[in-house]
Amino acid sequence: MIVGGSEDRKHDMRVLTRFVELCGGADQPVAVVTAASQIAGEVFEMYRAAFAELGVTHLSHVHLDSAKEAGSEKLLAPIRAARGIFMTGGDQKRLLDMIGGTPVHAAIASAYANGACIAGTSAGASAMSRFMLAEGKAELEPEKGAIRLSPGLGLVERVVFDQHFAQRKRLPRLLSILAERPDLYGIGLDEDTALLISPGRGIDVIGDGAVTLVDGLNMISNIDALDDGEVPRLIDVRLHLLPSGTRFDAGAGANNPIPAPFQDFFDAITQPEQREPS
Amino acid sequence: MIVGGSEDRKHDMRVLTRFVELCGGADQPVAVVTAASQIAGEVFEMYRAAFAELGVTHLSHVHLDSAKEAGSEKLLAPIRAARGIFMTGGDQKRLLDMIGGTPVHAAIASAYANGACIAGTSAGASAMSRFMLAEGKAELEPEKGAIRLSPGLGLVERVVFDQHFAQRKRLPRLLSILAERPDLYGIGLDEDTALLISPGRGIDVIGDGAVTLVDGLNMISNIDALDDGEVPRLIDVRLHLLPSGTRFDAGAGANNPIPAPFQDFFDAITQPEQREPS
Repeated sequence: MIVGGSEDRKHDMRVLTRFVELCGGADQPVAVVTAASQIAGEVFEMYRAAFAELGVTHLSHVHLDSAKEAGSEKLLAPIRAARGIFMTGGDQKRLLDMIGGTPVHAAIASAYANGACIAGTSAGASAMSRFMLAEGKAELEPEKGAIRLSPGLGLVERVVFDQHFAQRKRLPRLLSILAERPDLYGIGLDEDTALLISPGRGIDVIGDGAVTLVDGLNMISNIDALDDGEVPRLIDVRLHLLPSGTRFDAGAGANNPIPAPFQDFFDAITQPEQREPS
Repeated sequence: MIVGGSEDRKHDMRVLTRFVELCGGADQPVAVVTAASQIAGEVFEMYRAAFAELGVTHLSHVHLDSAKEAGSEKLLAPIRAARGIFMTGGDQKRLLDMIGGTPVHAAIASAYANGACIAGTSAGASAMSRFMLAEGKAELEPEKGAIRLSPGLGLVERVVFDQHFAQRKRLPRLLSILAERPDLYGIGLDEDTALLISPGRGIDVIGDGAVTLVDGLNMISNIDALDDGEVPRLIDVRLHLLPSGTRFDAGAGANNPIPAPFQDFFDAITQPEQREPS
């Protein structure tokens, strides 16, 4: 469950409610991972209150201030036990510095492989993919050299996520990624909005806004001829806008069949075969 | 020449310099049409100073405060004589109220047919097409019912122009148009940026920013099933970004050939056959 940040935590809590359902209900163990944040206590308290409101009975706080802590049984036990893992916002680089390649990372990947619901919001959303946005300017136009990718948690392949998407007007930044990495799909998530990827089964859009998907596989660009800071010419970017309530199901005879021009993108994000961290 | 507004009028004046060249040089007669504006005197004074700086020797001011004036020989003579007509910003509805279907409109269309350079900036840019954006909200997401089109000057077919595009983050508004009118192409022009359409010959992008083109001909949307205010699901919008310096030429053996996925769009905006007002 990839959340665009600022999900409602006090009123309708649509995104968090769905998360709890996907964990198997409020009596199932949930772990909140705040390793992306430098104000972890405050952030955990916010989610503690929200999940208490939703009736969650077994909530653990997983936090690290150093990657050295990532082997500790005290942190690993709640992750192994969890039916839901929620990664908060903060800075995705900090999150990867703390847990990337550690036993915590491996435990999250195992939980995912075993059917636990893994959610990330804001920085926690960006970190979900194999390549994540480590740095990126959001200018008026895409620019060569405006973004830098680094390894993420690798739970989703061939995709880069960006969050606070409509609110912070980040399409130029997403197109900057596409211009440099046309082999990756770009997904922009609005605030209080989640893309739920059910491996091998389908996708849902939940919450208040929409998800914007950009596909540069057919794109013709002049990026190789440019200097840093120049605006690329991009021809034939494919853009899909999926508002909240959108649902597509995999397989023949599905209730919500996938439109043909979206099939490859859908397959890329829902393919279940690769779930281990790199 | 379709200008996204706020073109530089004091320093490099790249867009206005190109306009003067396209008029045939600074000794050719130029008419500035301020009918879109309610502060016409001020607006004309700004352009008078800019064109004086560029050495323009024959500048006329064409203004109307009522469509009744649009038959006056005093207004028609400078338009008929002009090798360049520059339509300023203001409100495109006011511009059409003043000149739509009048002898002034016919004289502008004739000047265009006779090879004069017709430029419009901001409201003057929006007014160029057969259908123009009369009203439109620019929300975070496209919405059903967010826009209303009305007849424009009809110098360009099958296109809707929007201006101040990157600066005012108007992609959602342009997608709102596309969702309701997938038969029209959408073109968003950044400030201080112009799209030069040379009928039958080619296009150039001039100035500081870029031109964003969206094509919904292949789009799959659910707009018909929605109520006003709802966000449409849009699958397979084609997006092209053309930065300043982009040039495409029509015809076999062109120096700057048109990429295949852009050919239909290019043909739609450069086809020379229909230039008379409706």
